[in-house]
Amino acid sequence: MGKKLTKRNEDYSKWYNELVVGADLAENSGVRGCMVIKPYGYAIWEKMQAGLDKLFKDTGHENAYFPLFIPKSYLSKEAAHVEGFAKECAVVTHYRLKNAEDGSGIVVDPDAKLEEELIVRPTSETIIWDTYRKWIQSYRDLPLLINQWANVVRWEMRTRLFLRTAEFLWQEGHTAHATEKEAIEEAEQMMNVYAEFAEEHMAVPVIKGLKTESERFAGAIETYCIEALMQDGKALQAGTSHFLGQNFAKAFDVKFANKEGKQEHVWATSWGVSTRLMGALIMTHSDDNGLVLPPKLAPIQVVIVPIYKGEEQLGTISDSVKPLLKELRSKGISVKFDNRDTHKPGFKFNEYELKGVPVRLAIGQRDLANGTYEVARRDTLEKETVPANEVVSKIEFLLEDIQKNIFKKANTYTQDNITEVNSYEEFKEVLEAKGGFISAHWDGTIASENKIKEETKATIRCIPIDAKEEEGSCIISGEKSSKRVLFAKAY
Amino acid sequence: MGKKLTKRNEDYSKWYNELVVGADLAENSGVRGCMVIKPYGYAIWEKMQAGLDKLFKDTGHENAYFPLFIPKSYLSKEAAHVEGFAKECAVVTHYRLKNAEDGSGIVVDPDAKLEEELIVRPTSETIIWDTYRKWIQSYRDLPLLINQWANVVRWEMRTRLFLRTAEFLWQEGHTAHATEKEAIEEAEQMMNVYAEFAEEHMAVPVIKGLKTESERFAGAIETYCIEALMQDGKALQAGTSHFLGQNFAKAFDVKFANKEGKQEHVWATSWGVSTRLMGALIMTHSDDNGLVLPPKLAPIQVVIVPIYKGEEQLGTISDSVKPLLKELRSKGISVKFDNRDTHKPGFKFNEYELKGVPVRLAIGQRDLANGTYEVARRDTLEKETVPANEVVSKIEFLLEDIQKNIFKKANTYTQDNITEVNSYEEFKEVLEAKGGFISAHWDGTIASENKIKEETKATIRCIPIDAKEEEGSCIISGEKSSKRVLFAKAY
Repeated sequence: MGKKLTKRNEDYSKWYNELVVGADLAENSGVRGCMVIKPYGYAIWEKMQAGLDKLFKDTGHENAYFPLFIPKSYLSKEAAHVEGFAKECAVVTHYRLKNAEDGSGIVVDPDAKLEEELIVRPTSETIIWDTYRKWIQSYRDLPLLINQWANVVRWEMRTRLFLRTAEFLWQEGHTAHATEKEAIEEAEQMMNVYAEFAEEHMAVPVIKGLKTESERFAGAIETYCIEALMQDGKALQAGTSHFLGQNFAKAFDVKFANKEGKQEHVWATSWGVSTRLMGALIMTHSDDNGLVLPPKLAPIQVVIVPIYKGEEQLGTISDSVKPLLKELRSKGISVKFDNRDTHKPGFKFNEYELKGVPVRLAIGQRDLANGTYEVARRDTLEKETVPANEVVSKIEFLLEDIQKNIFKKANTYTQDNITEVNSYEEFKEVLEAKGGFISAHWDGTIASENKIKEETKATIRCIPIDAKEEEGSCIISGEKSSKRVLFAKAY
Repeated sequence: MGKKLTKRNEDYSKWYNELVVGADLAENSGVRGCMVIKPYGYAIWEKMQAGLDKLFKDTGHENAYFPLFIPKSYLSKEAAHVEGFAKECAVVTHYRLKNAEDGSGIVVDPDAKLEEELIVRPTSETIIWDTYRKWIQSYRDLPLLINQWANVVRWEMRTRLFLRTAEFLWQEGHTAHATEKEAIEEAEQMMNVYAEFAEEHMAVPVIKGLKTESERFAGAIETYCIEALMQDGKALQAGTSHFLGQNFAKAFDVKFANKEGKQEHVWATSWGVSTRLMGALIMTHSDDNGLVLPPKLAPIQVVIVPIYKGEEQLGTISDSVKPLLKELRSKGISVKFDNRDTHKPGFKFNEYELKGVPVRLAIGQRDLANGTYEVARRDTLEKETVPANEVVSKIEFLLEDIQKNIFKKANTYTQDNITEVNSYEEFKEVLEAKGGFISAHWDGTIASENKIKEETKATIRCIPIDAKEEEGSCIISGEKSSKRVLFAKAY
């Protein structure tokens, strides 16, 4: 607190880092690449978890828990999968420490070496499909619709709070189906669930699409994704849902007897979102004054700041505020009355602006005399004076309106920053000048995709689900193309 | 299913293992000592989490998240702590796998050795106190009341589902206070919160007490605990709350400026319960037919089994049950209508008995004609016929009554199995004949405690909080004692 944030247009990346720390969301820990999620940040994550968990359960999924560790040999069973994850695995090799014989302190006990090394899960397909082999015998056991809330570890060389950390929190769904069609429908359904959550809870507009072959999950036949556009014109992959075909069923020998009694391999999906969503949330809405939170995810939806001199005035204000606190709480609105005498109102105003509290009420002597509150909304920073008997309905209106307004604003920004181009020159100009999503024709080859990536750092974020059939030619090769794809620089 | 459980009086341990697997609670995984918590077991754990989380928040705590990994050097900073945990730590030494040069598959990359080994957290005092040093400067930052829901790893040689696993799920509270008195009050408060949860949610009666020096948490000044008695006469430690004094504040140099501006070390507590509570829950109430669950924690509180021949009869029953389902759900009662045509009613009755569903309704043609349901309660296995228009109030009554009744039953059992003895002979006789808690005088020395442990395998479970002052002499040394302590064999 105290110090102002760097402005977004000065240094977006610095603004983000200062905001995450300044708003008490998270900080780096003493362990390389691992973050501490602070109580205020974790309270937002808890609201996200609750929202997602309900959507998962409403679509028939149950939660379960699988081991943190994966034997090295499991990871190797699916060729593409091990290729994708081996280079970023934390490996447990020993199970004991002991006092060094030379008295220099605690060392790893060489006698406690594991026969087979254990990987700290980077994702759980392998350990889960090893388990599903025991759970699935017949078509009656299908579909199996399971989700896990867990921590995972991917050893990243360059880390950033929430966006890329060695350890992160996430959920991973792992489902098993009798038919290919059903598995594809599940993967599509979960992409839609993620999009619904992003737009309706986080107020973050997203584009639904398919990943290209080179951007697919290691082991997937098809990866569905939701992509969001940040205020600096870079895209952020906010969630992925994979159709895994029979790859893991074959690797782990998971078969079922179909209705005719014939043995078949099971069809699979997996899907996940992580604490990375916190990054998307922060970067989509926040401004140079701090966080802007959607009311549905704000740990504190309303804060009331008393303006007073001395104990007596504070007492009078407290008494007059009490019924309001009670009424708001009875309506399920989370409200904080900040009566700390260690900080001035101005300091508190800045603090709650920085922390993105959607609605702020102030009440001083004049308000008390007039029977009013000063009501400020965080998204537009507008203030107005509201009679005390109208303040509850005003707050209810604002909580809904802020949720809608910040979505609308972000959506307008996203739509305004999807640019159609028809040549590579134009592509590079737009990428340089404004960034955002660039909609262009592509010939479907990895070679063209890679060339663009090497020369411009832009990647194909997705082939939009709603892309229209359209004759065109690839901006790089000139070959025929029937659809536009979305390019962008990405987090 | 199908196969009957081993009876408790034949082989209690086998009964437990069969029950945990048979009721779909958990199973062993392919990873040594790590369990898979299955959806039905996890649903119970989720209800436990929700209940505990509310009690923590109601007492002013917030959740946060700290890293999974702890640098080896952190663990070493508190002498008693490293002594207690070093021998059971999983150690990460490398961060990458690679293809073996001889083509034999994937191996640990020797070039990816960590400079400092990382421990997978066995508990988080060290990483958290390293963080608190940055969070605490002044008395205004205190108390700091934080809880974490997480997985931890302790390399156990002999493991048992829920009771002792290498990885387990838990919560760990870590609080920081300005004064010794306040920290002790916090540790006591959390013991009371745990006792309240155990008794009121789990219906598991517990004894609150203090651990002896040799049973204390590694690094604690005082360990408070709740102890429960299982049906085989063995005790189970269900939760612990530690007063840590200034040990961790000193080890991690965490000081605060008091109101006079003087620097002081912070006072600490930590407290935790784990998936071990699942073991306590299972063993306290269940019988030879399977699980008995307290209604407050049952994922399915009521199951309705239709008894029918053919689609048409099922249709009629379904129609007549629909309004009941709706009414129960509107009251927040979780109800399942099991209309599977792949299993007979008798099979379903056994399945829900095994899974401990508190209330079972059956409805067949005669009930339909008479406007009744057959209502069975899981705890006593009593059945009665109830008019349809009274069935909701009957269910509401049963859910409350079962919760009370199973607590009462377990409490009577516990009280009946606390035996006062006044000689070592008597002690050994009672331990052999009936087990349970044995209340005896002890001289307060580790020597006497160890001798009894070596000779009988019984340990001091706790010095009860409500132990009366009473003149006596130690059963083993004959030395003077002023209080009885509780001995038992334990899980």
